Amino acid sequence: MGIHEECGVIGIYEPRTGDIAHDAYLGLYALQHRGQESCGIVVCDDGVFCEAKDMGLVSEVFDESRLRSLSTGNMAIGHVRYSTTGTNSYANIQPLTVRHTKGNLAIAHNGNLVNSYELRHDFELSGAIFRGTSDTEAMAYTIVSERLRVGSTSAAVINAMKRIKGAYSCVVMTATKLIAFRDEIGFRPLCIGRTASGGYAVASESCALDAMGARFVRDIAPGEVVEIGEDGISTFTDNCKNRGRICVFEYIYFARPDSVIEGASVHEARQKAGELLAKKHPVDADIVIGVPDSGIDAALGYAKESGIPFGLGFVKNKYIGRSFIEPDGASRRDAVNIKLNAIKSNIEGKRVVMVDDSIVRGTTSEKIVRLLRRAGAREVHIRISSPPFRFPCYFGTDIDSQENLIACKYKSVKEIAKSIGVDSLGYLELSDVHHLAETSSCGFCDGCFSGNYPVNPPRFTGKDRFEERIHK
Amino acid sequence: MGIHEECGVIGIYEPRTGDIAHDAYLGLYALQHRGQESCGIVVCDDGVFCEAKDMGLVSEVFDESRLRSLSTGNMAIGHVRYSTTGTNSYANIQPLTVRHTKGNLAIAHNGNLVNSYELRHDFELSGAIFRGTSDTEAMAYTIVSERLRVGSTSAAVINAMKRIKGAYSCVVMTATKLIAFRDEIGFRPLCIGRTASGGYAVASESCALDAMGARFVRDIAPGEVVEIGEDGISTFTDNCKNRGRICVFEYIYFARPDSVIEGASVHEARQKAGELLAKKHPVDADIVIGVPDSGIDAALGYAKESGIPFGLGFVKNKYIGRSFIEPDGASRRDAVNIKLNAIKSNIEGKRVVMVDDSIVRGTTSEKIVRLLRRAGAREVHIRISSPPFRFPCYFGTDIDSQENLIACKYKSVKEIAKSIGVDSLGYLELSDVHHLAETSSCGFCDGCFSGNYPVNPPRFTGKDRFEERIHK
Amino acid sequence: MGIHEECGVIGIYEPRTGDIAHDAYLGLYALQHRGQESCGIVVCDDGVFCEAKDMGLVSEVFDESRLRSLSTGNMAIGHVRYSTTGTNSYANIQPLTVRHTKGNLAIAHNGNLVNSYELRHDFELSGAIFRGTSDTEAMAYTIVSERLRVGSTSAAVINAMKRIKGAYSCVVMTATKLIAFRDEIGFRPLCIGRTASGGYAVASESCALDAMGARFVRDIAPGEVVEIGEDGISTFTDNCKNRGRICVFEYIYFARPDSVIEGASVHEARQKAGELLAKKHPVDADIVIGVPDSGIDAALGYAKESGIPFGLGFVKNKYIGRSFIEPDGASRRDAVNIKLNAIKSNIEGKRVVMVDDSIVRGTTSEKIVRLLRRAGAREVHIRISSPPFRFPCYFGTDIDSQENLIACKYKSVKEIAKSIGVDSLGYLELSDVHHLAETSSCGFCDGCFSGNYPVNPPRFTGKDRFEERIHK
Amino acid sequence: MGIHEECGVIGIYEPRTGDIAHDAYLGLYALQHRGQESCGIVVCDDGVFCEAKDMGLVSEVFDESRLRSLSTGNMAIGHVRYSTTGTNSYANIQPLTVRHTKGNLAIAHNGNLVNSYELRHDFELSGAIFRGTSDTEAMAYTIVSERLRVGSTSAAVINAMKRIKGAYSCVVMTATKLIAFRDEIGFRPLCIGRTASGGYAVASESCALDAMGARFVRDIAPGEVVEIGEDGISTFTDNCKNRGRICVFEYIYFARPDSVIEGASVHEARQKAGELLAKKHPVDADIVIGVPDSGIDAALGYAKESGIPFGLGFVKNKYIGRSFIEPDGASRRDAVNIKLNAIKSNIEGKRVVMVDDSIVRGTTSEKIVRLLRRAGAREVHIRISSPPFRFPCYFGTDIDSQENLIACKYKSVKEIAKSIGVDSLGYLELSDVHHLAETSSCGFCDGCFSGNYPVNPPRFTGKDRFEERIHK
Repeated sequence: MGIHEECGVIGIYEPRTGDIAHDAYLGLYALQHRGQESCGIVVCDDGVFCEAKDMGLVSEVFDESRLRSLSTGNMAIGHVRYSTTGTNSYANIQPLTVRHTKGNLAIAHNGNLVNSYELRHDFELSGAIFRGTSDTEAMAYTIVSERLRVGSTSAAVINAMKRIKGAYSCVVMTATKLIAFRDEIGFRPLCIGRTASGGYAVASESCALDAMGARFVRDIAPGEVVEIGEDGISTFTDNCKNRGRICVFEYIYFARPDSVIEGASVHEARQKAGELLAKKHPVDADIVIGVPDSGIDAALGYAKESGIPFGLGFVKNKYIGRSFIEPDGASRRDAVNIKLNAIKSNIEGKRVVMVDDSIVRGTTSEKIVRLLRRAGAREVHIRISSPPFRFPCYFGTDIDSQENLIACKYKSVKEIAKSIGVDSLGYLELSDVHHLAETSSCGFCDGCFSGNYPVNPPRFTGKDRFEERIHK
Repeated sequence: MGIHEECGVIGIYEPRTGDIAHDAYLGLYALQHRGQESCGIVVCDDGVFCEAKDMGLVSEVFDESRLRSLSTGNMAIGHVRYSTTGTNSYANIQPLTVRHTKGNLAIAHNGNLVNSYELRHDFELSGAIFRGTSDTEAMAYTIVSERLRVGSTSAAVINAMKRIKGAYSCVVMTATKLIAFRDEIGFRPLCIGRTASGGYAVASESCALDAMGARFVRDIAPGEVVEIGEDGISTFTDNCKNRGRICVFEYIYFARPDSVIEGASVHEARQKAGELLAKKHPVDADIVIGVPDSGIDAALGYAKESGIPFGLGFVKNKYIGRSFIEPDGASRRDAVNIKLNAIKSNIEGKRVVMVDDSIVRGTTSEKIVRLLRRAGAREVHIRISSPPFRFPCYFGTDIDSQENLIACKYKSVKEIAKSIGVDSLGYLELSDVHHLAETSSCGFCDGCFSGNYPVNPPRFTGKDRFEERIHK
Repeated sequence: MGIHEECGVIGIYEPRTGDIAHDAYLGLYALQHRGQESCGIVVCDDGVFCEAKDMGLVSEVFDESRLRSLSTGNMAIGHVRYSTTGTNSYANIQPLTVRHTKGNLAIAHNGNLVNSYELRHDFELSGAIFRGTSDTEAMAYTIVSERLRVGSTSAAVINAMKRIKGAYSCVVMTATKLIAFRDEIGFRPLCIGRTASGGYAVASESCALDAMGARFVRDIAPGEVVEIGEDGISTFTDNCKNRGRICVFEYIYFARPDSVIEGASVHEARQKAGELLAKKHPVDADIVIGVPDSGIDAALGYAKESGIPFGLGFVKNKYIGRSFIEPDGASRRDAVNIKLNAIKSNIEGKRVVMVDDSIVRGTTSEKIVRLLRRAGAREVHIRISSPPFRFPCYFGTDIDSQENLIACKYKSVKEIAKSIGVDSLGYLELSDVHHLAETSSCGFCDGCFSGNYPVNPPRFTGKDRFEERIHK
Repeated sequence: MGIHEECGVIGIYEPRTGDIAHDAYLGLYALQHRGQESCGIVVCDDGVFCEAKDMGLVSEVFDESRLRSLSTGNMAIGHVRYSTTGTNSYANIQPLTVRHTKGNLAIAHNGNLVNSYELRHDFELSGAIFRGTSDTEAMAYTIVSERLRVGSTSAAVINAMKRIKGAYSCVVMTATKLIAFRDEIGFRPLCIGRTASGGYAVASESCALDAMGARFVRDIAPGEVVEIGEDGISTFTDNCKNRGRICVFEYIYFARPDSVIEGASVHEARQKAGELLAKKHPVDADIVIGVPDSGIDAALGYAKESGIPFGLGFVKNKYIGRSFIEPDGASRRDAVNIKLNAIKSNIEGKRVVMVDDSIVRGTTSEKIVRLLRRAGAREVHIRISSPPFRFPCYFGTDIDSQENLIACKYKSVKEIAKSIGVDSLGYLELSDVHHLAETSSCGFCDGCFSGNYPVNPPRFTGKDRFEERIHK
């Protein structure tokens, strides 16, 4: 998979001061799949903020001494981030902490604004300076500017939400309050739970609540603002419009299978995708396998519906990480072979159905298919548990360029199948994605498949244009 | 799993000089599961040895500059190691390189000798000094002492094998030859393949041949010595007695499922274990799940045989490694919860069959069962794809103390079941393990289950005793 | 010495694009003595800024790959910093880069503002947010706010200088210009030179020009603004009032002896201090020694004037850095003994004059005297090449608390001499400091000795108060 | 200076168990100038050895956790090493710990054997294997082989000393004893002192005794063996022949000026060298300067004898270490300029006498002279406080090749002077070196100047030849 979610957020509010940084750390560990580039934690200790953040995985950024260096406290927020801005983007690492006339404010943001250029421009005209290039800094400015006019940060957030457009599931921390809010479309998930000691925890996915020892209570509604403080929890629904439209790709790929989002189990949604695939694209075969890790759930669904036995097709080398030194081009070795190895006894002489969650450029799929052929597969049929990507996403993922998408390059599914060397290829249909999570209280955004976006795309598009402007 | 294999070895011989260190690196990556404590590579460049080794994973020990610092060459051997001797054991990291009157010799060893105390003692009486505490140094001494008497290293190895007792699958490198050999019982696996450029590769498991781009040819026979040099490959069968007895736990847990050992697929052996379990210990249930990663294969077998559907029970957090900071005792959080999380939608209200490969002390099993109960499991039935551990292993694993083994602590399986809180518990029977890999050309050592060892245990047992002697 | 300068700055402007980061690196190496806590470089490559900065020494922050990661360019600024704000002060590391409506701006600042509280407060009231706690961020805001009103950054700087009060020697970089300026008092030094390729270099001290291969041209005048761009160099003297008053402690301790500041050699000023001490506080003795490294220059002057031979009193262990693990209290060992060791053959039986640059708390002096006694000194006479510290400094050093100053604790010099165990003690007189650098075109600030400050101290004093306000 | 000492050693024996590793650490810090490539400490805790060693400076190898990982104990030995064998020489890092039939033995060695090839060869013929390439391993073998024949390690050392030839000042540690010994020529220094708690300390130089809080007692005599154990100290003089001949370059350059060796102060010896130079090579000049750090002592002597005032010529950048990234050749910058900067006010228009300890290849001297010329020196006269190097050293330094020595390249001193661009050049005369340390109880080895060696050079010379043999 060449597609990345851009972020995950967590927040905790406890009635008593304690080693809250370690809880935040456990929560971030559970959300690591949502962003592997940088991470950070800000702890609030009786009004004083203490932060630690850096480029790298949670396991790389936090060792014992760094975790201890974060003081004890009763509130914390944390963030994991994926971005494409390169190594010198320290100023963009979140949570972002700012100091303003009414005090300190820390913010962690999952999503992407579509009007950040306009927001920055307006602030700059009034003399504002920006330290980084992220839309989150523009969001912080907007909240702070509203805070000067109204009596509380929650009220400022409610007002700010009318000015910021796009995808945002956020946690904000002040000296005394933890505030969580979600854009009115609800592109990205955000849920709330109770901790074992009677406090509250907020997280992008319920699996992080589990990791922090908190019990899931409910999703935060699209447009809702939740404030947690000494007097308990309050909710503000001023910006709640109608039924939101969550990103369907959260179910298909981004979220962890053990998470429950908008009332629907992610694992079940994937299994359902596999079942639907089996109905729409049946094939005579001997074994159904999934591409680890994300293709396994849908493969089980395909096997169940089709009656073809499920089996393990590959062993994934779990020790290969970012420091793995790829074999160079001259060598006959290929990194995919090292990361995945076919279990020959399951493949040899078989007609294989291989289920994966998506195809982006097609190059990885092509290599995996070759692995199966080399292991003796008689036929290889790929089933993809999502429709073809045809449009960029502006709401918090990096599906950003039509040029690289294999589904834009070829006219028909058959041509794609041919290019990656398979006997057949079947995608999920666009109409099917709305059945993946029927218990879900939400509608879906399927813009990357349909080009139909719930919010207008940004007028100024393309990271490059933007970067250029602010540099010159 | 609290049980560790002690080592994995690889060797490569190419007709031409090249970037052989990178091939060795890929091979070690594939064997990382056999030892995570230290690793090393020795390259032979026209007779000159160049080595790099250190404590840590392959990914930690080798970065690009270190890999480049190993010169090009046409031969290399490598080793991954698990041991219990602590941080200051640098002298024990393998491959071990020694210099003697006839030249240099490097050796990588998987297994454990039972007469290393006696060997060391005899050498010391003649003035020998040892730098480390490993049995491998005694093995090197034995080979070198024979080398002084005979005309080739292969002949020296053949003679030395008559003096060293226990488990050893080894690769030895001299200035011009690569020699691979295996003890006459064949406790540990060792196989040979052809590289794409017409050379040879040797490895503990066939998955490493795949990673090095080599084609599996055959297992090296118990007692066999294989010599590879400029004139091709020669084999010496002087020490081949009768049918060997390979460690059955290689099939059950140690080896990678994509490896083929002694003609039998490891994945199939595990699936077979699950089938046998289903026959011997059937139960009415709604779902069969495996404990990741090693319990999945057998769970598929159990599901197939029993007809109960297979499902995913847990998500394993793949980012948790050695640097993970465990929650402390005071916290209500538990590291097992962070590493594994139940997929509630698959568990809630269900009667669950959970398949795992073994139970050592029972503490981890107990915690995993608690995870399932908390996720709403109505019943939990554990099925273990091996017989109970009752005896120490002296042949290259760390099953070394009867005191900690839960099967020695309790009299009956029922009592064990009660202690870990499950509704039922079923082990594989001792007689069954001989059916796991029927295509295997070898018999099995089942000493850890039966106490029946193919070679007498060491007279001087216990690492502590030995350490004490050499230190005082 | 327990006193620290707070910063050093450099800037380079070359006619052609090249490996300018490495030149900046060499310049920062030469200024490392002015700040060891963090450092950074920002390169401007055709209008695009590329930065690298971190906590640590220049040697720790920059390795080859990080230096290479800074693109080539034709302009760069750099900064070394000492501060007391702890580990989580990443937001305060300089150069500070900000983005505003007219483009990017990077700033490096040596000194300390006295009205930064008021500046921040005013900006915050208009909605500004601050990322760090440094006065430099307030300075950046002031410049940017002026930039919105006027047509060039130089004009903005000239206006801003009327609003910011205190000590500042700065370099600012925009997409096309390098601007250097100094407060109207000229507390901290700043000089300019020509590079070998016809460009310009700016630095806190001339020793950095030497390191960057640039030829010293002149000091930037107190109040002067110098702009360097495609069309060459321009100077603006709008804010030049009368003769400035440079910090006299730059001559006594902070600056490197090979630097020339305001037309006076630092080494000669120190030697002169020693001569004046010899005149005012003569003593019969056998040898004059200096406390390495900073007491050596004045010791040579004392020896010259008094006729008593100069000799080496101590060997300083040059390998002891921040990672040195101090012996604990229980041990009889003392870190001072490890860092300095007396050369017994020069001390034994002698009457010793020991010259040092200052006494802060007196504890280190006491230990050094004990070293001499143990080495057999018959008499120990200390001569200090500065007057006693009696007042805090608000202009860029950390002489900040009267409680710890030994000269505030004791009433007379005699009492101080007794407390540190010497036979006699002599300080430089306040009136003498004005004779140290008579060729200097500048007057002196001697506030830390006299309490007589050229600019009023801040109304809101004390780092603690400030920190508290912005945190709550 | 391009010349390196090869090692420094320390040993401590305390009556009671304690944090002895930290004392050893302080001792090694004081000897860091004798070897910067690797270092190690072995602690003996009630007979059990615990060791830590690695490539790097003492400050890099030992952090707090590593120092703590060395258990408490009552004995320790330590070593700092310089060598030329490259990065993969881990097996050569000292102290070397070996295990033999009578127990454990650790050894730390300063010096170089001339018959290690022959010793190794003999041992190898009897089946011995070597792990590294150092002569110290051959020494360990010799001691162990004698230990099998006699009743104590001290007796074994006495016998072994008859078989090993060359330079060795060593400490050996067994489970109960600390043994220090020195070859019969006494090439390298070794002294003994009493610790504050009534124990004993041994070190290459007295400055390390000072650092360990021990009081210097006496030098160990050439040929002497000193044993320290529960029953106190014993001395064996079986191998003490006549007056030894210590390396005169220890006085001129290697040792620290605060050390006292064989009754003579190193600082005084250097000052004396300067005085002798002033007598033999007077010159009319305005200032005498020394090249930091090692030329300062002799410069003071030259100034004293000649009456020409001593002054500071250079500031040395104390932050430049191994991680400094040198400017590349294309740049006009030169690393020497960054490391040393001339104090122009002392040099401009002056006739300068610059004193240095030696000239090896002449390239560095040439650059330093250019620095002085650029700073405005009217004349530059170099005085060298040693005779010209004309012969290799086989006894523990790396003066190993005549080809690179400038004194072998040119016929006359005048030619050398011309090649490095000075107005005059004067060396110390060979006969003078015997007057440097007249209180010294020892004679001198001046082989590198005279070619007259107290022990025959090795028959098999050249590291290359040797390396080749053991590799093929």
